[in-house]
Amino acid sequence: MTGTRRAGTQSLPFRSVAAKRRSPRLAISLDALDSHLGYFIRRVQIWVFQDFIRTMKPVDIRPAQFSALVVIGANPGLSQAELAATLAIERARLARLLHRLQARNLIRRLQSGDDGRRHALQLTPQGRTLLARAKTLAARHERRLIEKLGAAPHEMLLQALRDF
Amino acid sequence: MTGTRRAGTQSLPFRSVAAKRRSPRLAISLDALDSHLGYFIRRVQIWVFQDFIRTMKPVDIRPAQFSALVVIGANPGLSQAELAATLAIERARLARLLHRLQARNLIRRLQSGDDGRRHALQLTPQGRTLLARAKTLAARHERRLIEKLGAAPHEMLLQALRDF
Repeated sequence: MTGTRRAGTQSLPFRSVAAKRRSPRLAISLDALDSHLGYFIRRVQIWVFQDFIRTMKPVDIRPAQFSALVVIGANPGLSQAELAATLAIERARLARLLHRLQARNLIRRLQSGDDGRRHALQLTPQGRTLLARAKTLAARHERRLIEKLGAAPHEMLLQALRDF
Repeated sequence: MTGTRRAGTQSLPFRSVAAKRRSPRLAISLDALDSHLGYFIRRVQIWVFQDFIRTMKPVDIRPAQFSALVVIGANPGLSQAELAATLAIERARLARLLHRLQARNLIRRLQSGDDGRRHALQLTPQGRTLLARAKTLAARHERRLIEKLGAAPHEMLLQALRDF
């Protein structure tokens, strides 16, 4: 059944995977798309979202929610503005996202500052427990991505894109 | 005003751009996110979409529409199923996308095959004219992406992600 793939696919050279995937049935030309990095980034990103969401099903956490929980967990007391800037999430969208996390009792927003308008973000005990579990699941997702890309290309991509 | 950046930013080393962007105001820790490639892929992908959509304003073409036009243009007569498989677009979504391109008189769907149920896709003359203009604009977008990443990392990323 798995004829064309041996065990330990992560050690297969890049190209052999590619040849199979790029043109599913026929030799269909990608023409100009073949030089557009954004096209390929989008394809990988869709795979990542699908796999991440599936992996996170036991904790029911979406990618952006996970990012917010991780950063709040590692930086207790940070403000919504700081979180928005760190994650490059539009502030209105972040407000909705935090509202949902608060409704699930995963985070709390403490009023702080002179005028009480600054919200200091913290995980609740329940949030900390869930985040620990979510991190374990996320690591499982990442291992699958490493297996698909190969360890060296994964590390190379991380270096390159981290700095975008 | 541009103090920290010289002309020819594409030749600046990666790291100098990174340091500025990663922590907008404070030293906020990304914690586990820092090892999640998907997080960084998503950030780049958002930039790419925003820049692409802005660049394509004169022709009013979205990323997935551009991909479809390019592949139809380079493979006249291909079927919807082949196009869906090539672009990894869900068939229902592709049907809606093609409907819009047809309503703008950019493509036509010719019935073919024994039972007339296979749709052979083609650009209209108007579609060919628009695609030529769209490709020029897309190349402009790609040059901006190359400038942001640096030419060598751009090529490296293209090699690695093309084969995902």
